[in-house]
Amino acid sequence: MVTATNSLELRLDRLLEEDEARGLDATLITSDESIAYLTGFRPIQLERFFGIVVSAERSAVIVPALDRGQIEEAPRRLIPISYGAESDGIPELVETLAGARTVGVEEDHLIYARARALAQQGFELVPAGSVVMGLRIAKDAGEIERIRSACELVEEGLRRAFEWLAPGAVEHALNARVEAWLREQGATVAHPLILFGENAANPHADPARRELRLGDVVCADLSVCLDGYWGDLTRCATVGAPSEWASAAWQVVLEAQRAAIAAAQPGVPGRDVDAAQRQIVEAASGLGACLHGAGHAIGLSIHEPPFLVPRWKEPLAEGTVLTIEPGIYKGGLGGIRLEDDVVVSDGGPEILSTLPLELVELGR
Amino acid sequence: MVTATNSLELRLDRLLEEDEARGLDATLITSDESIAYLTGFRPIQLERFFGIVVSAERSAVIVPALDRGQIEEAPRRLIPISYGAESDGIPELVETLAGARTVGVEEDHLIYARARALAQQGFELVPAGSVVMGLRIAKDAGEIERIRSACELVEEGLRRAFEWLAPGAVEHALNARVEAWLREQGATVAHPLILFGENAANPHADPARRELRLGDVVCADLSVCLDGYWGDLTRCATVGAPSEWASAAWQVVLEAQRAAIAAAQPGVPGRDVDAAQRQIVEAASGLGACLHGAGHAIGLSIHEPPFLVPRWKEPLAEGTVLTIEPGIYKGGLGGIRLEDDVVVSDGGPEILSTLPLELVELGR
Repeated sequence: MVTATNSLELRLDRLLEEDEARGLDATLITSDESIAYLTGFRPIQLERFFGIVVSAERSAVIVPALDRGQIEEAPRRLIPISYGAESDGIPELVETLAGARTVGVEEDHLIYARARALAQQGFELVPAGSVVMGLRIAKDAGEIERIRSACELVEEGLRRAFEWLAPGAVEHALNARVEAWLREQGATVAHPLILFGENAANPHADPARRELRLGDVVCADLSVCLDGYWGDLTRCATVGAPSEWASAAWQVVLEAQRAAIAAAQPGVPGRDVDAAQRQIVEAASGLGACLHGAGHAIGLSIHEPPFLVPRWKEPLAEGTVLTIEPGIYKGGLGGIRLEDDVVVSDGGPEILSTLPLELVELGR
Repeated sequence: MVTATNSLELRLDRLLEEDEARGLDATLITSDESIAYLTGFRPIQLERFFGIVVSAERSAVIVPALDRGQIEEAPRRLIPISYGAESDGIPELVETLAGARTVGVEEDHLIYARARALAQQGFELVPAGSVVMGLRIAKDAGEIERIRSACELVEEGLRRAFEWLAPGAVEHALNARVEAWLREQGATVAHPLILFGENAANPHADPARRELRLGDVVCADLSVCLDGYWGDLTRCATVGAPSEWASAAWQVVLEAQRAAIAAAQPGVPGRDVDAAQRQIVEAASGLGACLHGAGHAIGLSIHEPPFLVPRWKEPLAEGTVLTIEPGIYKGGLGGIRLEDDVVVSDGGPEILSTLPLELVELGR
C-alpha cells in the first residue's frame, strides 16, 4: 500500500485535532489497520507490541527492532523508536507517553495485559477507538478506488470458481485453488469460503473433503485484500436446475438485499439498514433462519464499524463502504447469501461491483 | 482438528483444578487457540465475542448465532449458548458468570473494551493466561505427531521452493506459488516468507516484485497450520557460489543454532537458550545484527509462550515444542536464518524435522 506522505501527515493532523477536542493528552494506536492508515505500513504483530503515540507533545511509532526496517517510510513527525529482545516495548511506550495523563486507546484492539500495565503506571485510559475509526470510516477517493479494484479481483475469482465447479469437485480443493489464483493475482490475503449443499447452511463452516453433487446449492463468499484494502462479495449457484427451495430462498434474499441497499443512506442508523433486510428474511422463516446482520463496513479491515446489526444506532456517514449481505439458512439443505460492497453517498448508494445478480445454474 | 472428546473433558478437568488451586471462581477463555484446545473447534472471531467459561458452578461455550453449528461437537459439560445479532455477547457472558467474583482471563487476548465491561459489572479480573497456557505448553504425544506432520509438509515445501528458484523468479510470485502448493496439500494456513538478497536483511519484509539474481542470498521461512497445529522451518540458499559474507554468516548461524538447541533442556530458563545463540551471533557483529531472540514455542499457535528472549526467566517444561531460529542480518546485503522445531525432553532435545542443515547452492 502506498499512500502519499502528505496525505498521511494530514491524517495525523486530523487525529490530533480530534484528540484535543476530546481533551485527550495523547492517543495510542495499536491495531494493524489504524497503524497502516497512519503510516502506510501494516505490521506483523504476533505477540510483539507495535504502537503509534500521537500527542501535541511527542508523536512516535514504536516497533520491535526486528521491524525497524518497516517504518522508514512513516511520516517524519513520528519519532521512530525500536526496542530490542530484552524489552516487551512497554517501557519505551511509557517513556514516550511521559507527561500525559489521559490516553485514548483503541479499546477493541488493546489487550488487557497492556491496558493494565499502563493503568499501573498511572495513565487514565479512555476508549477512543471511535476517534481514529471516525477518520477511517469515510473513505477518500483513492481508498474507494482501491476497494473497487479489490472487488474487481473478487468478481474475476467468482467467475473462475463457477467455471471450475462441476459435480465431483471437492469443496476443500476448490477453495484452495481459488485462493491460490487470487494470491497469484496479487491479493496479499484471500479468503474464499465456497460451501456446498448442507455445509452452506452454516455460514462459517470449514470446507470439507465433500464432493459437489447434482442438486446442491453453492454459496461462494470471496474476500481479498489488495494493496491494503478489502473487497468482499458473495454469489450463489445450483448444480442443475434450482430446487423449489433454492428458487424461493434466492428471491427472498434478492429482495432483502435490494431493500437494504436502498436503506443505506447517509444519516440512517446502521440498524435500520439491518431492519430493512431482516423483516423480509424473517417473514420467510419457513425457508430458513436469519443468522446474521445486513453487513459491515469494509476498508483497511475486512470487518470494521459500523456493523449493520440491531444494536447499531449511529447514523451512517457519507463515504462509508458497506457490505450488504443478507442470507437465509436451512439446516441440512443449504444457504443463500448475496453480497455487494456499497458506498454510502448523498447521491444514493453506489455499488462497487458489476457482477450480475443471478442464481448461477452450473452444468451437470 | 479432531481430538477425542474424553481428552477434551480431561483438559477441562485440569483447568478446573488449576482454577481452584488459584482461588479463581471462574476462568474466561477467549483466544482462538485455547478455545480450540478445549473444544476442538477454532472460531472465526472477527469483531464477535466467543468465550468459554469454566467454573465449578457452570461451564459454557458462548458464540454468535452465526456459529452455533460449530459447537455441536464441544464437550457436553459446556452449555452451548448462542446470541443473536441484537447482542454483543456480553450480557450472555455476564449471566453465565453470575455468582463469580474473581474471574481469570487470558490477559494477552481479552480486549480492553470487554475487560472494562466486566469490571463495570463488578467482576475482579485476574490475569490467568498462564493457567490455560500452562496446560497447552506441554504437548501430548498426539500433538507432537501433528507438529511433526506440519514440519514434514514444510520440508517438502522448502524442497519445492528451492527447485522453483532460479534467476528471474519473482519474489512475490514465488511466495504465492509456494503458499498455493502448501494449501493444496491441506494446510489450513500457510505463511511462506521467502526473501531475496537485500530484502532478506529485514526479517519481516513484504515479498516484492523483485527478481532473483546471481549472487543473492535467499532466506526461506515457511510455516503451515495442518490439522490445527503449526510447523515452522527456515533454510537459506545462495544463487551461485556463496559470497564470503554468506559463507561466514552461515557458519555463525549454524553454530548459534547448535548451541541454542543444546541449551533447550527442561528446567533451563528461556533466556538461557537465547543467550546461547546471542553470544555467538553478537560476537560476529561485523557480519550483521542480531535482530531477534532464539525462537518461541509453537503448537496450536504459530507463536506462543515461552518466548526465547532475554526477559524470559521461567524454566522450560518437558514436552514444550520450540522453534530454534537464530539469524544474522546485514542491511543492503541480506540475512541468514536457520530454524528447526525441537521438543524439550528429559531424553535431550528432539528435532522434529529431517531437512539437512546446508546452505543450498541454487543453479545459475
